[in-house]
Formats: sequence, structure tokens, C-alpha cells
Amino acid sequence: MAQAPLAAYTAYKHYAITSPSPFVAHVEINRPTKLNAFLEAMWLELRQIFQQLSTDPDVRVVILSGAGDRAFTAGLDVQAASQGTPIQGESDADAGRKAIKLKRYITDFQDCISAVERCEKPVICVMHGIAIGLAIDLSCAADIRMCAKDTRFSVKEVDIGMAADIGTLARLPKAVSSASWVKEVCLSARFFDAKEALSVGFVSQVHESKAAALDAASKLAAVMASKSPVAVQGTKELLNHARDHTVDENLNYTAAWNAFALQAPDMQDALLSGITKSKPRFEKL
Amino acid sequence: MAQAPLAAYTAYKHYAITSPSPFVAHVEINRPTKLNAFLEAMWLELRQIFQQLSTDPDVRVVILSGAGDRAFTAGLDVQAASQGTPIQGESDADAGRKAIKLKRYITDFQDCISAVERCEKPVICVMHGIAIGLAIDLSCAADIRMCAKDTRFSVKEVDIGMAADIGTLARLPKAVSSASWVKEVCLSARFFDAKEALSVGFVSQVHESKAAALDAASKLAAVMASKSPVAVQGTKELLNHARDHTVDENLNYTAAWNAFALQAPDMQDALLSGITKSKPRFEKL
Amino acid sequence: MAQAPLAAYTAYKHYAITSPSPFVAHVEINRPTKLNAFLEAMWLELRQIFQQLSTDPDVRVVILSGAGDRAFTAGLDVQAASQGTPIQGESDADAGRKAIKLKRYITDFQDCISAVERCEKPVICVMHGIAIGLAIDLSCAADIRMCAKDTRFSVKEVDIGMAADIGTLARLPKAVSSASWVKEVCLSARFFDAKEALSVGFVSQVHESKAAALDAASKLAAVMASKSPVAVQGTKELLNHARDHTVDENLNYTAAWNAFALQAPDMQDALLSGITKSKPRFEKL
Amino acid sequence: MAQAPLAAYTAYKHYAITSPSPFVAHVEINRPTKLNAFLEAMWLELRQIFQQLSTDPDVRVVILSGAGDRAFTAGLDVQAASQGTPIQGESDADAGRKAIKLKRYITDFQDCISAVERCEKPVICVMHGIAIGLAIDLSCAADIRMCAKDTRFSVKEVDIGMAADIGTLARLPKAVSSASWVKEVCLSARFFDAKEALSVGFVSQVHESKAAALDAASKLAAVMASKSPVAVQGTKELLNHARDHTVDENLNYTAAWNAFALQAPDMQDALLSGITKSKPRFEKL
Amino acid sequence: MAQAPLAAYTAYKHYAITSPSPFVAHVEINRPTKLNAFLEAMWLELRQIFQQLSTDPDVRVVILSGAGDRAFTAGLDVQAASQGTPIQGESDADAGRKAIKLKRYITDFQDCISAVERCEKPVICVMHGIAIGLAIDLSCAADIRMCAKDTRFSVKEVDIGMAADIGTLARLPKAVSSASWVKEVCLSARFFDAKEALSVGFVSQVHESKAAALDAASKLAAVMASKSPVAVQGTKELLNHARDHTVDENLNYTAAWNAFALQAPDMQDALLSGITKSKPRFEKL
Amino acid sequence: MAQAPLAAYTAYKHYAITSPSPFVAHVEINRPTKLNAFLEAMWLELRQIFQQLSTDPDVRVVILSGAGDRAFTAGLDVQAASQGTPIQGESDADAGRKAIKLKRYITDFQDCISAVERCEKPVICVMHGIAIGLAIDLSCAADIRMCAKDTRFSVKEVDIGMAADIGTLARLPKAVSSASWVKEVCLSARFFDAKEALSVGFVSQVHESKAAALDAASKLAAVMASKSPVAVQGTKELLNHARDHTVDENLNYTAAWNAFALQAPDMQDALLSGITKSKPRFEKL
Repeated sequence: MAQAPLAAYTAYKHYAITSPSPFVAHVEINRPTKLNAFLEAMWLELRQIFQQLSTDPDVRVVILSGAGDRAFTAGLDVQAASQGTPIQGESDADAGRKAIKLKRYITDFQDCISAVERCEKPVICVMHGIAIGLAIDLSCAADIRMCAKDTRFSVKEVDIGMAADIGTLARLPKAVSSASWVKEVCLSARFFDAKEALSVGFVSQVHESKAAALDAASKLAAVMASKSPVAVQGTKELLNHARDHTVDENLNYTAAWNAFALQAPDMQDALLSGITKSKPRFEKL
Repeated sequence: MAQAPLAAYTAYKHYAITSPSPFVAHVEINRPTKLNAFLEAMWLELRQIFQQLSTDPDVRVVILSGAGDRAFTAGLDVQAASQGTPIQGESDADAGRKAIKLKRYITDFQDCISAVERCEKPVICVMHGIAIGLAIDLSCAADIRMCAKDTRFSVKEVDIGMAADIGTLARLPKAVSSASWVKEVCLSARFFDAKEALSVGFVSQVHESKAAALDAASKLAAVMASKSPVAVQGTKELLNHARDHTVDENLNYTAAWNAFALQAPDMQDALLSGITKSKPRFEKL
Repeated sequence: MAQAPLAAYTAYKHYAITSPSPFVAHVEINRPTKLNAFLEAMWLELRQIFQQLSTDPDVRVVILSGAGDRAFTAGLDVQAASQGTPIQGESDADAGRKAIKLKRYITDFQDCISAVERCEKPVICVMHGIAIGLAIDLSCAADIRMCAKDTRFSVKEVDIGMAADIGTLARLPKAVSSASWVKEVCLSARFFDAKEALSVGFVSQVHESKAAALDAASKLAAVMASKSPVAVQGTKELLNHARDHTVDENLNYTAAWNAFALQAPDMQDALLSGITKSKPRFEKL
Repeated sequence: MAQAPLAAYTAYKHYAITSPSPFVAHVEINRPTKLNAFLEAMWLELRQIFQQLSTDPDVRVVILSGAGDRAFTAGLDVQAASQGTPIQGESDADAGRKAIKLKRYITDFQDCISAVERCEKPVICVMHGIAIGLAIDLSCAADIRMCAKDTRFSVKEVDIGMAADIGTLARLPKAVSSASWVKEVCLSARFFDAKEALSVGFVSQVHESKAAALDAASKLAAVMASKSPVAVQGTKELLNHARDHTVDENLNYTAAWNAFALQAPDMQDALLSGITKSKPRFEKL
Repeated sequence: MAQAPLAAYTAYKHYAITSPSPFVAHVEINRPTKLNAFLEAMWLELRQIFQQLSTDPDVRVVILSGAGDRAFTAGLDVQAASQGTPIQGESDADAGRKAIKLKRYITDFQDCISAVERCEKPVICVMHGIAIGLAIDLSCAADIRMCAKDTRFSVKEVDIGMAADIGTLARLPKAVSSASWVKEVCLSARFFDAKEALSVGFVSQVHESKAAALDAASKLAAVMASKSPVAVQGTKELLNHARDHTVDENLNYTAAWNAFALQAPDMQDALLSGITKSKPRFEKL
Repeated sequence: MAQAPLAAYTAYKHYAITSPSPFVAHVEINRPTKLNAFLEAMWLELRQIFQQLSTDPDVRVVILSGAGDRAFTAGLDVQAASQGTPIQGESDADAGRKAIKLKRYITDFQDCISAVERCEKPVICVMHGIAIGLAIDLSCAADIRMCAKDTRFSVKEVDIGMAADIGTLARLPKAVSSASWVKEVCLSARFFDAKEALSVGFVSQVHESKAAALDAASKLAAVMASKSPVAVQGTKELLNHARDHTVDENLNYTAAWNAFALQAPDMQDALLSGITKSKPRFEKL
């Protein structure tokens, strides 16, 4: 999958951002020598990138993966974290003030990861190798999860003495099939493999290798990029809304949304191209 | 499955409504020459039918299927739709007024499909052949989904340049196991088959043929029709409530519901018939 | 699995409470001659036990199972229930007052079962043999469900003329993968076996026998009991919260929770033990 | 306030419907010899009327009042009700089935009153004389409440042995200032007068007489009818939404609403007319 | 207001419980030498009392006031609290474990105060003299608030370095008219008097003296006690539900509630007594 | 009220930011020659300022007012707006794409105003003269509203052909006493004065002049700034949470919050200073 760098995204430091096909951006976590483990600068940059992608009219679908052979990401860089945690930095503050500052810090960290969910374009997360801790938080914020069959997953946080707080506990129970399984893997931190991930619905595709998974993601991304962006982005918005609302509330919001979205010419163009067997071209969004 | 027409439902034009066994109604979408594609008159009639069924004391379970060999339904009749859309009919209105009228129109369309969910009796949807677009919206509003193994499903809407707005995006994420899979099929409009539908929990039974599926549905319907209608209809009401409420709220509503439902003699009759090995007879509801 | 009685829990009458390993409590429903069917005194006692376990610093994980070879529990003791139901006891009250008293009665019954969910420690429910009616309500309130392959499950309530009202209808739709399957088993009261229970995600493990299932539960419990109780109990609290809240609300509550939980030394101790390859010891909670 | 009958509304039997000024409809409950007490036929008709008004492009504001000098309405016609209640009509049904039918009946009755709230146009309710029971339910579903100073209000239901169930208990706590006052008047059924109604915010205007109140309502209605209907109807929709949602949810729905509403030319026309000191003319809606 | 002790309530230690009239209980906080300041034993006992009152068929209305001339209550007994706070008792625990135990402690304290709200019977709170801190939390959990004109109120908590956590911040914003006023008094801890309390709707009646307020409360209580308890208790339940739910949800719950409540003979009895000008007698509840 | 400029805030262009007393910041909208009407740059800057104030440990309370004698603010600068609206800038886009971009634009505008609500420190809004349109949106996002008696308020938006979309419709119904009054002023755009604003609870204080109002605000701010910032900021957070949650949810969140906040020494310091009659000094936050 030879990919040209995306001109508007060359300034980022911790991610390689390229384009495998028109309207598709590929964001690669790029710290393979450290198993793509996350430093604070990396999640701050992640937010910037996905905010830019969100309204970039030249991008319609995003692929997120990790560089190198060994890991999607090994999660938080624990060594770095143990040196500069916000608690340790202010050892003289009282427990109450420490907590309030820590809450601000966690909230901001959550916001960086949620930027992936807030991105108006669909995000396909492709995982391989080690995918633990933050890897689960991050992939849960994506829309579609795929993996190589060698992927080893773990909701690792209880192993380091904490409850996961950047998104896994909020999103995983709503992403997969079995509440019993969610409790089991979150409370024991045990590993699970690609096959198990597929059977509970955490991923929707498993492939032979990282390359094969990326290839499948590229093809899926190209298909989605060929559809009307009004339709695709509306679908993402309305499905995210559905997860957190009752059916009645979602139906009402959907009616308000399509009241304007259907005034785009995309539906007419799509129907016409169906009749004429031609390929529709949709305006940017 | 030879079926007698149901006397009270012979006036409907687009549906054949029969009774395969006592207390069971079978509603068949009846436009097989057009793959059971929906005209506006058809969804308006659908609402009428399910409102009537909802409080008809002679009906306890409903089966919904499509006539002919080729399709449950191919969804919206696109040709008809392209001639009389509410937008095109008022080409001189401004974009704001068009949108407000379009919102009214969508809301009413949603209400017709939701009539299946509001129906107080369980509805078993039996699908076969082509089942795309509106087929998914419609079946999501039913209680139980079964299909023949030849069924080909698609959340087709993005292919015609729009986000699905009649119920699929509201109900599908709460009906199946995998958020990743839901996003994948909704954003790509790709087809999926009966086996995949079963594995993600969209349908709970797959059968060899349409006939076999209908037969299984009839047997299941007969079982449910033999139970206390107070118990069955209460169970439907409380499960629908559960989907859209917290556990605590549902428990409280359930307590209020059973505070009166348990005063019906059905529980006593059912327990007694269990002891005497006789078949209980329950009053109509 | 030889188990010593837990000293603080010997006074309970209907349950045998032992400890298979440090910090693990095993609660056994102990009325095997009646298939562990529930009398009112039993669910009242269940609430007491789980309230005590909830804040007992010597307990970190709970296993819940049924004594004997034949049944986890056959549910409500119908014979006993038919003699002393709250309705029949006040046959002279009007239907309105009967209903208000019945609502109080159901609410209190629900509260007894919900004590399992409210227990701050993870609860692993191990089922075998007959597991019907109240068995489903009860296991749904646990965190993790396992079973022996001989287990026969049924949401039995419609068979006795009532809608389940002690928790199944509230929790089952949020515990498993398929809304269609939930409606099917709840509306028909049909049996399903261990394999089906696993495939829809109702249980997350199936074992050859009751003994094997208990053994697996013990090992899992020992793993969870070896982790930081601050991490494990926080994870249970936050996952339960997630089920009933939007993602945004859960993220905010999580940030508030970890603002204090991360001030325990457990994270530092866990990280250190990871580096030194030693086994961490966590303070009680 | 001489008023011409509104041509499209002359077929209704229990209401006199006229137009005091352009785009304003005046709906008068018209059974003054019985203090405008409600028969079942009257609330069924009320729903029809407000459904028609809701999308009638020739109506922008609605005034609702009662005919005659003595009463806005004395509420339910108790005499009629005592003859044909749905309970008494089926004296042989068991308490459980009676309750389920009664729930259907109450739900439908609620829906008739809620039609006033659902009406897309603002509704000004003008009360005088006796205004008890159903009068409170009904006026709570209106947008703006005014009264003559002789009005005597009472949440009368506990006096006839029931909790109000057609809307007062749902809407009154969100319409006025003081929870203590709401509980006091609802639990005691005591009368309160126009002055007290104004001081707690139940009404926003009190006038010397019914005629003066109607006159003020007409003037207010004329002012609202002169504004952009896109702006006015959007404001009603968004305020109703705000009552039942969090601030964040309402802001998001508002953004979706105005995304299309602002594409109407009304804003430009209004701004221009402000500059040119002319009176803007808005298209119908 | 000479009052006989209520026989079933003589064992309580910190409260004098009497009956001013049939079906009315008067609970008096009885520590006047300490301005009725609260010790932990007092709020634990408060919960017991209101749980007993909640289902006592001989009680239909409750009055809550404070003994002595000087104070309804001066709130928490700060001196006692400063000696035995749960934090200070475990000075060797880490900040995380302290917080988890503190959360349990606060939750239990909240539950004691909420017992007043959960009590199925209406509670009239009569305040006089000093009414600060816990006085506001406690009275907010009552249904109706009255006071003597000498009452001096303060949401005192920020003055002792904490945010109020036993109910004031949860309930006050939903009990009174002005968000600006709520923020002002909660953020500044300034005193406000009876007149101001009345004008914002915190109390619904102000009287010349404690005696006059108690007298008015007794009369109001007697009125409510003379009504159908099915109607009165249903009204309390439904109004409390309305505060925390949307209008649609409350309407649905109300329909379920009245589906059984209307089957009590109270409505028929009340209507009949209205016609015969006799005084209805309602069965206990 | 002579005020020194606040050093950290001198770079802002459209606001004068000073400090009337320790820990108090005074933000003045500074475009008096244009009646403080808002340009886009002004609301973008407003967000920056309140984000900085939110975590600035040297600021504990904020006062927000408008420069000059004539207006708090006349709202949106309509002239500027009419030249550069996002719709007009892209006249060639279709109605659907225009709407999606407009939704982004409104959402960002809302976010700027909501920064005042998100600011962790209490914000007192002092209004005078003209206070229309955006003035209401903005002041509703503040915690406490005061005004000079010459203030003239209007929810002006329907007069310019639009529904208010930056916060008034979301927050005003939850800030004041009377739903009828809210609908009246929002649907008619009529002016209301300081007296009316006080009587419905929109403002909680009215003063003789702008100077007197600012003086009162300064004194109130100084009082709040003298309290524990842990207590004050916790109170703001919990009151904002209460508005958008049920009582039960708020109680739970409050317990989690105070579980850490009470570990600050502020409560002990405040109690001690109460005993010693000294003035407590609290650490920054």
C-alpha cells in the first residue's frame, strides 16, 4: 500500500499521515521503537490531527494504525508517566487540591481520545501485534475495528492498579455483545486474541497479517469515500447519537438532520447514476 | 401453511392478512411483482393495520412477511419516490420552509414504521430474498427476526445518497452485538447474508427456505399465542421500555405494571394447569 | 475445591459461605432437596449477605452457585408462593389498594436481588443443571456468568402467567448480543442450553461439569483477588455506571472517581512490582 | 372582539372557531350551559382541531378560551363520566385486564390534551371564572396562560379520589416557581385566585375581566402573528425541547434546527425591514 | 396544639412523635438545648422513623418541626462532627481508600435524609428561628415548606469549607424560582429571611410565629388527611416522578399508576359524597 | 470602583480586565461606541478569556459587565453580521452542505458562550442599559445576574426572523420561575424592565445605577472570594450538574466529588477560624 504523504499534515511529529487513495487519510502512530507507546505530547497531537481531519473537505475516511511489526500500541509509556505524573509533580498539595487538578488532567486526556469519535469522518482502526491499555480506549473511539490475526489485546489497567479512565469502560460495554465478557476481561486484565475479539464483536474483521488488514481497510475506505459524504457523515453522526439516546429521541434528531441533508443534490445524483450505470461525483464537504 | 383470510382485515389493499392458527395474524406485504417495494400508500396502510391489531382481542401474535419468491421487500419504490417527493413538489419554497415540511413528512413516515413497535402484540418478522433499505427499518421495529438462508440484506441508504431516517440507525445499534459491524454495514451499504445476520444476532433463526422459515414462525407464534396474553404483552411492553431506560427506572415501571397485571387470574390458572397437566385457557385481552 | 467456612458468615441459614482462597468468598444456595427453589426468607437473607460482603475488607471477589447436582435454582418455590402471596392474604382489599401493596412487595423483592449488583465486589455466578425463572434474574445481577455444559436455562415467567419482574427484563437486554433472541426466549419461555447461552454472550465461559466450572471460577476469582481492590472495585462501579449513562456522563463520573482513586498507592506499587518482578501486596478496602 | 368564523373549522361541534385578526385563530370551548364541562366527544374533537391548526399555513397563533361568563371549564363532566367510565362498562373483567384497558384509555385521553402542546403554533390560553380539574391540565399544555381577575383555580382531582392523570402533575411542576406551592395545591385541592396564580408564575398576565384578558391575548397574538413564522414556530419547538432535555442536548438540537431554518429568507427580510422601517411580509408556513 | 404521643413511635430517642388529629403524625426534632443540632445517631433514627411512617396505615400526613423557641435546627453538630469524622478516624489510610470510605459514609447520610422524600405520605416541614445547613437539606426533602416569620435561613456549607452534599444542591434548584438566587445564596452562604424565602418560592406560607405556623400546618394536614389516601399518595409519587423525568415519561408512568389506582372505590365514594353532601370515609392504605 | 489591570490578561483586545479586590477579576466588554455589540472576533476572544480564568489560581470570582453608560450589550453587531454570514459567503453551495457548515458555525458560537458556564469560578453578570439578544444568551451562562434599574431586556431574536440559538432557549426556562412568562417574552420579543426581571427571578438583585450594581457585585464577589475555593468551585460544579440530572444522579456525583474535596484542609481551617474568630486563609486552587 504505497502512500503519498498528505501535504496538509506533514508538520505533525509523532504520526505519519499519508493518502492511500482519493479522499482517504491514513494516520500511523509512529514510534515503533517503543512499541508505539504514548507520551503526553502524542495524545495532544492526536487531538489536533483529528480536529483538522474532521472538517477537511479533501478527506472523507480515515484509517488509524500503528507503525512497525510488533504493536498497534503498547498503551501509555509507563516509564515516562512514572516520572512526570501530575500527582507527583505537586507533592506538597493537599489531597483535595491534588484530586481537583487530577480531574482536570484526566478530563483533558479523555478529550484528546474522544477527538477520534468527534471527527465527522468515519475512522477505521486497524490493529496488530500488541494492543493493550490505551490501545483499547483509542480503538473504542473509532467507528470500525479490524485486526491482524496475531493481535493480542488486553484491558490492561487493573494490572497497573487503576480503573481504565480514558474511554474503555465508557464505550466497550456498548460496542460488544456480552456484558459478562466485558466484566471478565476488564476485571482480570487477561489477554484475548483476534478470534475471541471477532466472536464478541469487538472487531468486525480479522485478517492474516497486518498488511492484509491494512489492505482490507483501504478497500473499505475507498468504498466509503466513493459514497456521498453527506450520507456517510450523517450516518456516523446519527449512529453515535443513537448509542446515547432513546429510539424516540434519535428519530426526532434524525428527522431534523435529514430535513436539511436531503436538500443536497446527492440523493438525486446517486439515483440518477444508478439508472445510468455511471459513477456519481459528489461535491466536497 | 394454508391460511384463512382474517375477516376484520379484508379491506386493506396492499397486504394479505390471514390466520394460520388461533389468535395468530399473518400480515403479508403484497406487491410481489415489484419486489414488494413500498409506495407511500403502503406505509400509511401499514400503520392502520398495526393500530387495529394492537388492541384486537382476537389477535395475540403477528407474523409479518413478504409475498412472492424474490423479496421480503426491496425497500422504497425509488421510481415512484423520484416523481413525487415532497421537496420536488414545492420547488418554489425557500430552503428553510422546505426543510420544515420535510421534517413533518419524515416524522410521519417514521410514525408509520414505529406502529409495528407500538403494536401491543409480539411481531415476528420473516424475511427472504431481497431485504434492503426499508426492509431493515421495518424489521428492526418487529420483536423477533427470522429469515430464509437465501436472504440478502443491505442497509442500502448511503448508496442512494442519504442517511437512513426511518428507524435503522435508531434501532439497529441496540438490536445486535457489534458496534463495529453496525458502522461497517451502515457506512458501506455492503450486502450481508443470513449466516452473518445470525452471527451478529440481527436474526435469531435461519431456515432452509422461506416456507421453512414461515413454518417455524407459525409454530413459535402458536406457542406464544397459547400463553397468557397478560404475560406476553406485559413482557413486550417491559422489554421495549428496558431498551430505552436505566435498570432502576425499568424496575420501578415493572413494579407498577405487575401491581395490576398480577391481579389477573392468569398466574393462578397457569400454575393450576401446571399441576393438573391440563392446558390453560386465558381470557382475551 | 475444599473450602473453609467463612467465620463472619456462619449464622446464615439458607446459604453455605466458604472461602476457596484468600479474599474470595463462595456463597452457595443451600436447599438442594428442593432444587434450591427460593422461599421469601431466602431472598431476604440474600440481601443481608451481599450487603455484608459489599464492605467486608477481607473479601475482594464473590462466587455464587447452587448446592447439589441438579440445579443452580429452579426459581421461585411455586408451592410456597401459592400459599402466601400478598394478594391472597388480603382478599378483602379493593383492587387499587391490593396493587399498591403489591407494588411495595415487588419493589422490595427487586431490591433483594439488586443487592448482588450493588455489592462493591465482583460477583461470579456459576450455574449448572436447572437454571430457570429467578435463576436468570439473579445471574443477570452478577458481573460474570459461567456455567456447566449441562445447564438448562429458561426465562420461565410467561409460562406461569406473568411478566418477569425481578430483573430479567431490565438487565438481560443489556447483557447479551441479540434483541431478537431476547424477545424470543422471554416471550416463549423456551429452554436454551449452555452452547446457545455462550453464543449470544449470556455466559462467557462453559465448562464440562459443575466442578470444572467452579474450578475455573475459583481461578478467575483468585486472579481478580490478587489485583488492587481499588482498581477492581472502581472498574465494577464504572462499568455498571456506563450501562445506564451516556458516554459523556460516564467519562465525567470516571474522571471524578479516579481523581481520588489514583491517590491510593496501588498504581505505584503495581508498577514497581512489574519492574521488580515481585508480587504486589495491596492494602485492604 | 368581533370575530369572523374560520371557514376551514366550521364543522366542529363543541367549539366555536373564529379569527380576530390575520393569521390568528380563536378556539372557544362552547358548552357554556354546563360550565364548559368536558364530555369524551369534546376531548376527541379537541385533538382533531389542534392537529388541523398545527400545519394550517393560514394560522400562526391560537387563542384558547371558554364561552360564557361563568367558567373557562369546570373540568370533566362528572355526571356523564359516572355513567360511562371504561371500568364500569366491563364489570365482569378481572382487575388485571380492566387495568390494561384503563391504561389504554388514559393514554388516549392524555394524547388529546397533549395535542395542544404538539401544535406547532403558539397557543395562548385565556381563563376566567371557574377553572378547575381538566382546566389546569389543558392550560398547562398551552404556551402562555392569561386570566381574568375573577378566575378561581383548583387542581381538583384529589377531591374526587384520584391523582390527576391528564397532564397537570407532569407539566405544572415545570411551569411555575415553587415546588412547595405545587405540592400544596395538588395535595389539598384548595382554590387559588388570579393574584396567587400570577405570583407563582402560573399565569403571566391578569386582567380586569374576561373581555380585557381576551383583548390582551388578541393583541399579543397579533404581535406574534406579525413575526416570521419560521422564527416563532422554531422558538416554540426549541423551548418545549429545552424543558425535557439537558442544556447540552438542547444546544445540539438547536444547532441542527437553525442549520436549516436560517436558510429561509426571513432573517434577511426582517433585518432589511428594520433598516427601511417597513413592515416585513413573511411567507406562510 | 395539644398532641397525644403516637403509641407506635414512643421508642425513638431524639424525636417526639405525636398526633394532632386523626391520621396525622407530628415528628419533632427534640434536642432544643443544642438548637436541635444533629448527631449521627439522629439522622440514622430519622431514617427509621420515616420508613415506619411510610407504610403505617394509621398515618396519612406527617408534620416535621423542631422543638424549642430558638431553632428548627442549627444543622450538623459541628463540635461532635469534628471529633469523630470518618476521615480523622483512619488517619493512616491512604487518600484513595479514605475517599472510598468517605463516599460510602456520605451516601449513607444522603440516604437518611432522602427517607423523608421516599416516605409515601406527604410531609409538611415547619421551620422557625435558626434554619441553617442541614436544615435546608432536610426541608428540601419534604413536600411542603412553611415557616414562622422569624426564621433565618442559610445554605451554610461554604462557610465551613465544603460544598453541601446531603441534598440542598440536588433539590433546591428544582424547588425554587430563580437560578440566580440559588447560586447567590449557595455560593455566599448569606442569610435570607422568611419574606425572601416566600418570594422565591422556597416556602409557600409564612406565619406570625412558630405556633401559628404549626397551627396552619395542622389544619392543612387535616385537610389532606381527610382526602382519599390513594389519591394523595399517588399525587406525591407522581409529582416526585415528574421532577426527574420528561413530560412524556411521566405521562406514561401516570397512566400505569392510575390503571390500578382508579380501581379503588375512592373515586366513586368521593363523587357520591359530593352529591350527597356527606363526608366520605376512605379505607386505610 | 478603581481597578488595577490584571497583568495576565492585558493582551486581550475587546475586553478590559481588571481586579477590584484580591482574587476577583472584572471582565468588561469594551466596545462602548457600538453599544458593546459583538463581532465574531469578540466571542472567540471571550472563550479564550474564560478558559484562562477557569484554571487561574489567582482568580476565584469573575464579574462580567459592559463598558459605557448605554448598554451591557446590544447583542450581535447586525451590520457586520449581514456582510459576512457563513451562508452568504458560499452562495454556490447546495442547501444541504450550507446547512452542515452552518451547524458547525453555530456549534462553535455556542461553545464560546458556554465557556462562561464551563469556567470553574463563579461568574456574576452585571447588566445595565440595553441588554438584548446575545445579552440574554450570555447572561444566562453566568451564575448570578444583577442589574441597574434602567436595564431594558429583550429576547430579541424573533424580531430578526430567527429562533435564538446561542443559549437563551436552552437555559432561560431553567433559570426563571414561569414557563408562561418565558414563552411570552421569547415569542413576542417584547421588552421587560429590571422590576419584571427581578419578579420572575431572572436577576436576583436590582440596584439604582450601574455603579451601584457593580459595587454590590464587587462586595458579593469579595465575600465569595474569601471562602474556601474548594467549597465555592465545588458548589458551582454541583449546582450546574443538578440542573441537568435527576436528584439521585446528582447525589451520587456529589458523594464522589466530596469524597476527595473533603480531604482538603479547608473544612478544618474554616471550622477552626470559626472557633478562634480569626479569618481563615485558604490555599489557591
